[in-house]
Amino acid sequence: MELKELCTRAKTAKYDVQNLSTDEKNRALLAAADALVSNAERIISANDLDVKKGEENGMHVGLVDRLRLNPQRIAAMAEGLKQVALLPDPIGEVTDSFERPNGLKIKKVRVPLGVIGIIYESRPNVTADAFALTFKAGNAAILKGGSDAINSNIAIADIIRDALGGLGITPDALQLIEDTDRAVTTQFMKMNEYVDVLIPRGSAGLIRAVVDNSTIPVIETGTGNCHIYVDKDADLDKAIPIIINAKTQRIGVCNAAESLIVHGDIKEKFLPLFAAAMKEHKVEVRADDESLGFIPGAVSATKEDFGKEYLDYIISVKTVNSVDEAIEHINRYNTGHSESIITEDKETAQRFLDRVDAACVYVNASTRFTDGFEFGFGAEIGISTQKLHARGPMGLKELTSYKYEITGDGQIRE
Amino acid sequence: MELKELCTRAKTAKYDVQNLSTDEKNRALLAAADALVSNAERIISANDLDVKKGEENGMHVGLVDRLRLNPQRIAAMAEGLKQVALLPDPIGEVTDSFERPNGLKIKKVRVPLGVIGIIYESRPNVTADAFALTFKAGNAAILKGGSDAINSNIAIADIIRDALGGLGITPDALQLIEDTDRAVTTQFMKMNEYVDVLIPRGSAGLIRAVVDNSTIPVIETGTGNCHIYVDKDADLDKAIPIIINAKTQRIGVCNAAESLIVHGDIKEKFLPLFAAAMKEHKVEVRADDESLGFIPGAVSATKEDFGKEYLDYIISVKTVNSVDEAIEHINRYNTGHSESIITEDKETAQRFLDRVDAACVYVNASTRFTDGFEFGFGAEIGISTQKLHARGPMGLKELTSYKYEITGDGQIRE
Repeated sequence: MELKELCTRAKTAKYDVQNLSTDEKNRALLAAADALVSNAERIISANDLDVKKGEENGMHVGLVDRLRLNPQRIAAMAEGLKQVALLPDPIGEVTDSFERPNGLKIKKVRVPLGVIGIIYESRPNVTADAFALTFKAGNAAILKGGSDAINSNIAIADIIRDALGGLGITPDALQLIEDTDRAVTTQFMKMNEYVDVLIPRGSAGLIRAVVDNSTIPVIETGTGNCHIYVDKDADLDKAIPIIINAKTQRIGVCNAAESLIVHGDIKEKFLPLFAAAMKEHKVEVRADDESLGFIPGAVSATKEDFGKEYLDYIISVKTVNSVDEAIEHINRYNTGHSESIITEDKETAQRFLDRVDAACVYVNASTRFTDGFEFGFGAEIGISTQKLHARGPMGLKELTSYKYEITGDGQIRE
Repeated sequence: MELKELCTRAKTAKYDVQNLSTDEKNRALLAAADALVSNAERIISANDLDVKKGEENGMHVGLVDRLRLNPQRIAAMAEGLKQVALLPDPIGEVTDSFERPNGLKIKKVRVPLGVIGIIYESRPNVTADAFALTFKAGNAAILKGGSDAINSNIAIADIIRDALGGLGITPDALQLIEDTDRAVTTQFMKMNEYVDVLIPRGSAGLIRAVVDNSTIPVIETGTGNCHIYVDKDADLDKAIPIIINAKTQRIGVCNAAESLIVHGDIKEKFLPLFAAAMKEHKVEVRADDESLGFIPGAVSATKEDFGKEYLDYIISVKTVNSVDEAIEHINRYNTGHSESIITEDKETAQRFLDRVDAACVYVNASTRFTDGFEFGFGAEIGISTQKLHARGPMGLKELTSYKYEITGDGQIRE
C-alpha cells in the first residue's frame, strides 16, 4: 500500500478507535492474543525467513537469537496483550473541572493522542507490544519495524488486524509500513497531516535520525548515560551492591550505569572495594588520574569516556571534591535519563535531587528501577529522555493528550 | 555575541533560575517592571528607530501602530510583569507520590522545562511578556523577535537583564538573539544541546517554518480555523449573538470563527437571520450551493474556503444533514483549535464534545473564550494546537516538565 493511503486510513481509523468502549478494546486485545497463539505456526514460518536471511548476512549470533520466535516467545507476546487488557483505561478521565465567573463550565478530559507512529529496530515482539499499548490508550498505530524482522512483523500485524476485523473493529487501527526502503521512512517522518506523534525506539543512531528528520512531534526515548555518585557520607555497604546491580544486572539496557563518580574524601577507602567488585564481575574500569592509583587493573579514562553509553562491561570513574562538582559533571555529560546518589546525609541527598537534571533521580537505589513495570505503570512504551510531554517511564497515560470541553448557555466574550 | 556562546550561557543560567525561590523570582519581576517604567525614554528612543525604518519601508499603517511604544504601552508592559509576579509558582509542586512494594518512595515533582526558545514576530511587548512567563516557571529564555522591532527588543531585554543583575540574579536568564539574519534563526532551531523547547508565535508561515526546520521539540501555537455548528435543535436566539461575537469581536485572532456549519433542517429559518447579522457587521459570506439561495449577497464558496483562516470580515458557510456530517467536516478542515456547537439537545452536544478533534470544544458559547485569561490561568504564552505536552491555552504550568525523585535504602533490582 502507498504510504499516503496507509496514513489516510490510520487517520480515519483514529476516530473509530478513540470512541471504542473499554470493553471493546479489552475484548480486541484478548482476541488478538488468542489469534497470535493459534497462528503460531504461520508466525514461525515467516520468522524462519528472517532468521535465515540474518544468518546468511552474517548477523551476530546474539541478534539472531533476539530475532528468533518460538512457541514460548509467541505465548509471551500473547500474554503481554492480555496484561494490557487488564490495565485501567486512561481515556475519558476528567483530570480537572472548574466553572468560570461567567458560568462557563470547563472540563479537562483525557483523550487519545490520535495516530501514533513508532519506528523501531528491535525484536518482532515490539510489533505486538506497541500495538497493545497504543490501542488501549485509544490510538491508531502506524508501525515501522526493522527490515531484519519484516516477514515476522507482517505476519504478526496481519494476524492482529484480522482479529480486529473479526470483532467488527477497523483493522486500520494497526498499520504496518511494509516497504523497508529508507526513503519511505524519511517520507513517513514528514506526514504531519496524518500522524500526531512519532516515537522512535532503538539505537542512539536511529533516535538521532528521527529527531533530525521528523517534522512530526517526536518523543525521544532511551539513550542512558547513567551515573552513580558515591558521596563522602555514603554507606559503602549499600554502595557496592547498588553499583554491581546498576552496572552488571543487564548491560545492554538504557538504565544501566555507565559511570561512577566518587568523592575524593573516601576514594582511598572505597575504590579498592569497588575495584574488587568490578574485577569479580569482569567489568573494565576507565579511571581519571585522581582515582587510577586506587583501582588495580584500571586504564586511563579519556574525556570521551565520560560521554559514552557503553552498553558493555565497562565503567568510567570520575573523582570530585563536592556534591556540587558531581552534579555539574552529571549535568554536563548525562542524557537526562537516571542518576543516583549514595549518601546518608539528607541535605546532600536533597541537593542532588533538586539540581540533577534527569527524568529519574535516585537516593540510595539502583538506576535499574527506571522502568514502567518497576514504577507500577503495568506497561511501558519506552523511557522518555526529553522534557516535553512525558519524562521517564511512559505507560498508557503518557500515550494520551487532553481536550477542554466547555459548556455554556449562550456566553459571548465582552 | 555568537549564537553558540549565547546558548551556552542560557544553559548555564537555567541551573540558577530553576533553583530561585518564589520570592526571588517575584522580586525580580517587580524590579524589571519598575526598570521598564523608569527607562521609558530609552525604550521610546529605540522604538523610534524601528518605527522610522518601518515607515520608510512602507510598512502598513496598522502594523506601524502595533509596533509603536509610548509611556502608556510601556506602563501596560510593566503591569503585565507585576501580574505574573502575583500568580502562584508552579515549580516544586508534588503532583503524584507513591511507594512501591520494595520500599522505594517515588515522588513526581514539577520542574522547569529548562531553556525555552521563543521565536516571534509580534509587537515588542512580547519580549517582556515571554520573559515574565518563562522566568516565573523557572526557565531561562532565549528570545528571537522580528527584525522590525529589533531596536525596541534590544532596549527592553537590556533593561530587564540589568534589573536581574541588580538583584544578583544572572542576567543570562534572558537572552535576546540580536542578529536578525535568517540563517542564524535556522541555526538556532538546531541547538538541541542547549534548548529544551521551542515555541513559535506569529503567522502560520512562521510556525510552519519552525516546525519544518527545528530539531528541538516544538510547541505549535496559534493557527485557528474555528467553526460554529448550528444544529437543528439550536436555540437561534443564542446562535446569532454567538456567531457575531466569534466572527467579529476581534477578527485578527486565532480563536475567531472562520466558518459556519448549518443543519439543513433549519437553513430556511436560520440563514436569513444569519445573513442579516453578517450584513449589519459588514461580513462577506461565502456559501455552499445548499445555503447560497438563503443568504442575500453571499458568493459561492470554493473548497479552498473551508480550509482558510481568513482573519478578516469573511465567513464561509457549509450545510450538513447531521451532527456526524458536521463533525466529519470539522475534523477534515479544522486546525485543532476551537469548535462550537449550538444545540439544546444534550445527546447531540455530547456527541460533538466526544468526537470533534480540537483543543477546545464548546457547547452554546463563543470560540473567543479560548484564552489563558478567560480560562483563569492568569497568563498565556499561546494556544497550543498540537496534542503533545500541552493543548489549548498555555499558562505557567504548561511551561514546566516533571522529574521523578526516588528515595531508597539500598534497593537493587532482582
